[in-house]
Amino acid sequence: MPRVARARVSMVSSIHPMATKDEIKYYASLKQKKAREESGLFIAEGRKIVAEGLKSPCECARLFVKAGTPKSDPDVASLLEGWSYETLGELDFDRISDTENSQGVIGIFDYRKLIIQKPTADRLIALFDLADPRNMGTITRTCDWFGIKELLIGETCVDLFNPKTIRSTMGSIFHTRFILSKNLVDELGRYRETYKIVTADVAGTDYRAFDYSGKGIYVFSNEARGPSDGILAATDEVVTIPGGGKAESLNVASAASIIVARIFG
Amino acid sequence: MPRVARARVSMVSSIHPMATKDEIKYYASLKQKKAREESGLFIAEGRKIVAEGLKSPCECARLFVKAGTPKSDPDVASLLEGWSYETLGELDFDRISDTENSQGVIGIFDYRKLIIQKPTADRLIALFDLADPRNMGTITRTCDWFGIKELLIGETCVDLFNPKTIRSTMGSIFHTRFILSKNLVDELGRYRETYKIVTADVAGTDYRAFDYSGKGIYVFSNEARGPSDGILAATDEVVTIPGGGKAESLNVASAASIIVARIFG
Repeated sequence: MPRVARARVSMVSSIHPMATKDEIKYYASLKQKKAREESGLFIAEGRKIVAEGLKSPCECARLFVKAGTPKSDPDVASLLEGWSYETLGELDFDRISDTENSQGVIGIFDYRKLIIQKPTADRLIALFDLADPRNMGTITRTCDWFGIKELLIGETCVDLFNPKTIRSTMGSIFHTRFILSKNLVDELGRYRETYKIVTADVAGTDYRAFDYSGKGIYVFSNEARGPSDGILAATDEVVTIPGGGKAESLNVASAASIIVARIFG
Repeated sequence: MPRVARARVSMVSSIHPMATKDEIKYYASLKQKKAREESGLFIAEGRKIVAEGLKSPCECARLFVKAGTPKSDPDVASLLEGWSYETLGELDFDRISDTENSQGVIGIFDYRKLIIQKPTADRLIALFDLADPRNMGTITRTCDWFGIKELLIGETCVDLFNPKTIRSTMGSIFHTRFILSKNLVDELGRYRETYKIVTADVAGTDYRAFDYSGKGIYVFSNEARGPSDGILAATDEVVTIPGGGKAESLNVASAASIIVARIFG
C-alpha cells in the first residue's frame, strides 16, 4: 500500500519516485468505495479542487499532472509550485481520472482529517439515504457558501468520497467536516437533547414561517422516497417549501439550498 | 423519417407496426442535437417523465417498453393504458436509452408544442451559456415547482432536449414553455421595454433586499464564467446571494433555486 506522506518541498518541482504500474492500478482502484475505506485515500480531480486540497489539513499522498497540461499556465504553475508532482502519460492518467474534463490535475488525498466524531457547530445539515453523488456534492458546496461547516452523513447515503461527489463540491469538501453516521436515526435521537431536529418533507410548517434561531440539525432525505418513519420519529419539526406549480417535487439539492439560504435570512 | 402520430387508442394495447432496425437506429440518433433539430423529436426516459409527456400537448411518436418490465406493475399499467406501445428487446432498448436506470419506458416526443416565440408570463427565468444539462433540467424543475411557466434559453446553452436535461426535469419539461433565443443579449434588450432585466452575479444588490414585484426576467449564467459584458449591459439590476463561508461560488441551479424561491416570498 503506498505510503501517505505530506510532500511539500521548496523550489523542487519533482522529487517523488515514479509511480509504478501497480501504483497506478492502486490509485485507479480508489474509484471504488472499498479501496477508499481500506486506505482513507480518495481521488480529487480538477485544478480548483486540488488547489483547495493542498491548502487543507489533508495529507496529499500523490499529485499527478497529465502529460501535455501546460505547466506554464499561471493557474497550473501556482497550483504546482512547491509541491512534488509526477507527470503521467495520457493512458495512465485516464485510468485514475473519472471525467472527460479533468483539467489535467489529480491529487490523491487522505480524508481522515475531514472526519469528526460528533457535532460541534450550532447548525448542521444531515443527509438521509441520498443516492445521487452530485446532490451530495452540491449540498456540501451550498453549505460551504453559507458557512455551515459540519455535515452529518447517514449510513445509507452514497459514499461521500465518490469522485462525482468530490467534483460537485468544487473544493468545498476540504472546507467542511463530516460525521459519518453508523445509524442516523439513533444519532439524531441522541443529538435531540441539544439540537432541534428539523426535517424537510411534504406537509409541514411553511419554511418561511419557521424560526431558525438556536441549535438545529436540518435533515434532507432520499430523492425519491423522502424521510423514513424512523427519521420522522426522531424529528421535532417538519418544514415544507410550498410550491404552486405542477412539479411533484423539488430536487433535494435545490430544496436544501432554499432552506439553508433561509437559515441566514 | 418516421411519421409522428398521436397514438392514443382505446382498450388496444399494441397496434403500432414493429420498429425496424433502421427505425431503432434513427431513434437512437435522437441523442444527438442535430437529429433532434432536424425532426423536432426528442427522447424522454423514465416512467414519471413519460407519464407527464403523455398528459402534455406534445405528440408522442413512439412509446417503447423494455422486455422484462413488469406491465402488471400498477405504475406501468396505468402509464400504458390506452396507448399503443412496443416492447423492445434489451439490446434495442439500450441503444435508445441514455441511462442505466431507465425504468424500462421511453417515449419519443415532438417538442414543438413546448416552444413559444415571445414571453407572455409576468416573470421568466433566462439562462445564459449554461453548460451542464443537469443544471438546466434542475432549474426547469424548480421553476415548475414555484409556478414559473416560461424560460428563455440563450443560444449558447447546452441543448434543452438533451436526454440528461430531460431526465433532470423529472417531467417538468412538459409543464414549461420555452423561448429558444437566437441572440439572448439582443432579445433581453428588446424585452427590457416591458420587463425589468435582473441578473444574478457577484457584487450586486443583496437578493433579500430586492423588490420582486412587477414584470421581471431573471438571468442565470454559465457555471464558470458568469454573465458576459453583453448580458450585464442589457441588465437593469444585478442581484447577489451573500455567503459568508469559504466556497468561491454557488452551483447555478442552487443559486436559481434560492432566488426563484425568494420571488415568491
